[in-house]
Amino acid sequence: MFPKNAWYVACMPDEIDSRPLGRKVCGESMVFYRGPEGEVAALEDFCPHRGAPLSLGRVVDGKLVCGYHGLEMGCDGKTIAMPGQRVRGFPAIRSFPVVERHGFVWVWPGDATQADPAKIHHLEWADNPEWAYGGGLYHIACDYRLMVDNLMDLTHETYVHATSIGQKEIDEAPVTTRTEGDEVITSRFMNNIQAPPFWRMALRGNQLPDDQPVDRWQICRFSPPSHVMIEVGVALAGQGGHEADSKVKASSIVVDFITPETETSIWYFWGMARRFKPEDHALTASIREGQGKIFSEDLEMLERQQKNLLAWPGRQLLKLNIDAGGVQARKVIDRLVAAEQGAPMEAPE
Amino acid sequence: MFPKNAWYVACMPDEIDSRPLGRKVCGESMVFYRGPEGEVAALEDFCPHRGAPLSLGRVVDGKLVCGYHGLEMGCDGKTIAMPGQRVRGFPAIRSFPVVERHGFVWVWPGDATQADPAKIHHLEWADNPEWAYGGGLYHIACDYRLMVDNLMDLTHETYVHATSIGQKEIDEAPVTTRTEGDEVITSRFMNNIQAPPFWRMALRGNQLPDDQPVDRWQICRFSPPSHVMIEVGVALAGQGGHEADSKVKASSIVVDFITPETETSIWYFWGMARRFKPEDHALTASIREGQGKIFSEDLEMLERQQKNLLAWPGRQLLKLNIDAGGVQARKVIDRLVAAEQGAPMEAPE
Amino acid sequence: MFPKNAWYVACMPDEIDSRPLGRKVCGESMVFYRGPEGEVAALEDFCPHRGAPLSLGRVVDGKLVCGYHGLEMGCDGKTIAMPGQRVRGFPAIRSFPVVERHGFVWVWPGDATQADPAKIHHLEWADNPEWAYGGGLYHIACDYRLMVDNLMDLTHETYVHATSIGQKEIDEAPVTTRTEGDEVITSRFMNNIQAPPFWRMALRGNQLPDDQPVDRWQICRFSPPSHVMIEVGVALAGQGGHEADSKVKASSIVVDFITPETETSIWYFWGMARRFKPEDHALTASIREGQGKIFSEDLEMLERQQKNLLAWPGRQLLKLNIDAGGVQARKVIDRLVAAEQGAPMEAPE
Repeated sequence: MFPKNAWYVACMPDEIDSRPLGRKVCGESMVFYRGPEGEVAALEDFCPHRGAPLSLGRVVDGKLVCGYHGLEMGCDGKTIAMPGQRVRGFPAIRSFPVVERHGFVWVWPGDATQADPAKIHHLEWADNPEWAYGGGLYHIACDYRLMVDNLMDLTHETYVHATSIGQKEIDEAPVTTRTEGDEVITSRFMNNIQAPPFWRMALRGNQLPDDQPVDRWQICRFSPPSHVMIEVGVALAGQGGHEADSKVKASSIVVDFITPETETSIWYFWGMARRFKPEDHALTASIREGQGKIFSEDLEMLERQQKNLLAWPGRQLLKLNIDAGGVQARKVIDRLVAAEQGAPMEAPE
Repeated sequence: MFPKNAWYVACMPDEIDSRPLGRKVCGESMVFYRGPEGEVAALEDFCPHRGAPLSLGRVVDGKLVCGYHGLEMGCDGKTIAMPGQRVRGFPAIRSFPVVERHGFVWVWPGDATQADPAKIHHLEWADNPEWAYGGGLYHIACDYRLMVDNLMDLTHETYVHATSIGQKEIDEAPVTTRTEGDEVITSRFMNNIQAPPFWRMALRGNQLPDDQPVDRWQICRFSPPSHVMIEVGVALAGQGGHEADSKVKASSIVVDFITPETETSIWYFWGMARRFKPEDHALTASIREGQGKIFSEDLEMLERQQKNLLAWPGRQLLKLNIDAGGVQARKVIDRLVAAEQGAPMEAPE
Repeated sequence: MFPKNAWYVACMPDEIDSRPLGRKVCGESMVFYRGPEGEVAALEDFCPHRGAPLSLGRVVDGKLVCGYHGLEMGCDGKTIAMPGQRVRGFPAIRSFPVVERHGFVWVWPGDATQADPAKIHHLEWADNPEWAYGGGLYHIACDYRLMVDNLMDLTHETYVHATSIGQKEIDEAPVTTRTEGDEVITSRFMNNIQAPPFWRMALRGNQLPDDQPVDRWQICRFSPPSHVMIEVGVALAGQGGHEADSKVKASSIVVDFITPETETSIWYFWGMARRFKPEDHALTASIREGQGKIFSEDLEMLERQQKNLLAWPGRQLLKLNIDAGGVQARKVIDRLVAAEQGAPMEAPE
């Protein structure tokens, strides 16, 4: 159950640089590639000739050439040419609204008439030389809402990520949750504590001492359909915490785009945007490696949790204060899905 | 189709020494671990908070701590504590009667009110310094009754285990089957034959000549729900066979606990208890290795037989004299299951 | 959907030289082996005793001995003997008409009363010392008709086999399709072109220059149920092409027997029969290796096409002129299946 009239991250730009990419998004099998002007295109991954996946083909001068019998497909889903054939009567395949922006490729799997690029999630840090971004992609066999829950309740860091970002103070600090329109914000502040290993590394990377008490914060922000941006950081204790001068803190934004593949599997685009040392590519790589290792610790838990929920379908889960972020996010999702199902897919002019 | 009101072997004690163990028994997903006093505990493998498998957590001071958000579970299925939460209203999860005895962990997957530890299968050789035991565990994709059939008709040794314990005399010797209450006993005696390789090794291990004629016996004893103990051995010929003095024979008990995981898969605990040289650990290891190799020869046959039976569901199998042990055992099982389904799960006081 | 009253290639003779072979053909699980006179036999792969697969057993003096309890099965599906048992009343299992001919083992999975060996596809090149044959076997997860389509429309060579036998001239040359009774023939002739790499190798193997223009031909012949023989070759340009003297050409027959395993999987027996240098075994091996590599390039395409067709079940495919061979072949298949389903399985005397 997911909104289809929404912009989802489909892939990273470099995934389609050299060849077409087949990827299922919200139950739709799509092929992504670059058209004649280098612009991204997204089509059903189904050749109208004999049903071969177009993603097994190649791109020639911006035309997607089927790898089976050479049908040349255009970005609009209409066949351009095929050796020895008149193609005018060929049935079109579905094309999906798709936009490359902020360093990601965004696709709209629902009603194309409602796909307004202005609705794409704005990333303040993207396209800004003061910031650097590094990230990766995991495929996980779970409902996308389990990952939203995971990210909107960071008490799990104490248990799942005990050796890197977890620390006892997290689940001892109270959490606050509020909603702003369709956004849900849950935050936690921990003052005068020792920084855990990941943050000690970040302090050193920022030329700050790593052995002094710090103030730590986590501000998780859910935006529909399933984006979670988390402001995280530590500042030398007593200097203002989240509001402290950038010289005495190490901070960044954990970036999470959770794209449903099916009802029980996701493409999880994770990453970190930071405002310090943006030109330091070695640091970017080092942070990516560390974050990738940490985030991989969630995979087994989420997949096994999913299996348990399928095995015990009738059982109610608890909704504690720490779960409020995920609970509120699900309410937003439910509201959007209900509105979508009530609305006609093709709006009249 | 299996009795649920019965004691099954769930695991070996050392499987839960260092971490909780997730294992499905009779269709119930369970987690096994040691509580505050080192006693075994068995619970549903489902955290009441968000449905994570508790078996992914760890045990701290006898409390099972969920690896996702730190809920602390007690051996009775009631939540003890959770950071920052009042847990009194948390729903309990199911706990299963479980007992450590005779070197095995036994679980009762059915109605807890009927779980009387006195009903646990008695093992005369366990907890007795004159005996030694070694064994292992196989997971096999077959109905547990196919393994009971296998063990109650040892003519298969001639074909499946031709190079170790099989010999032509087995399927030439008549077999006798009788029932005693809920037990089924099938026996075969072969006199004045050459010992096969496994038994020649055992004779040597017992300081007996391995090149003389022997009397060999196999006495298979089924006890519900699915235990098969097999007295096996050879004695120098003409000295009384099964009844001969222990100085002229090598004998042991093949131990088989067959625990259904699902309708078509089992946890198969196999082993051998012997009354000679109990202190010789190298001999225990050597026998375990030999037996493990022999018993692994049954796996493919049983799994492929299972697939065949699923593919030809309507076909009747033969019930020959050699099959009488398995056939009688199934009658006992059928009777117990029928009684169980007729009886109320929660007996009134 | 496949005809069952037809001769299919079941295996290569050497697959049953040393042990029985279990293989499913047209949904029937069969065991193939050699009987007392070395003749091939095909039975249900199901021991009437306890349902074990007979293919796990062994052949002793032409009797198939079950590997579980030693039942001895005859080629007619009747039990011959079993240690300690009277077998007269044992139920018979089904035997299938089976013939070894032309270097292949052929089985008739349908109504045995209609199985006339005279209907086995004649191979003019088999049993002829002027010809040599080499080939292999692939298991592919697709409907057998997708492979027929593939072989009856060789325009795919340009795209799937671009580095070996594909060349642009293939999809530029027109294709002609005709039917002769139950056969469908589709042909394409390309004159005065450069030979692609595979054919340059063949020209050299035939002591012909590999750098001169050639005339190339492809004549695909479908015979029910699912055989496709393809005459392929190149001749030095202007010497008569397909009709040229054998001294100036390299030609062969691509041999394709496509045996349905299930509705969506096949045993694909591929090979090449050639009329030059039949005694050159190194050349046979070299051609087999090259062909095996080329034909393996179709596997992913066919399996992914199958998945797409299952995912979009309602979608109509195009039937272009290049598809006429496959389309006509399907009409023949449809007609045979309809006739078979209308006819009684057991014809009255």
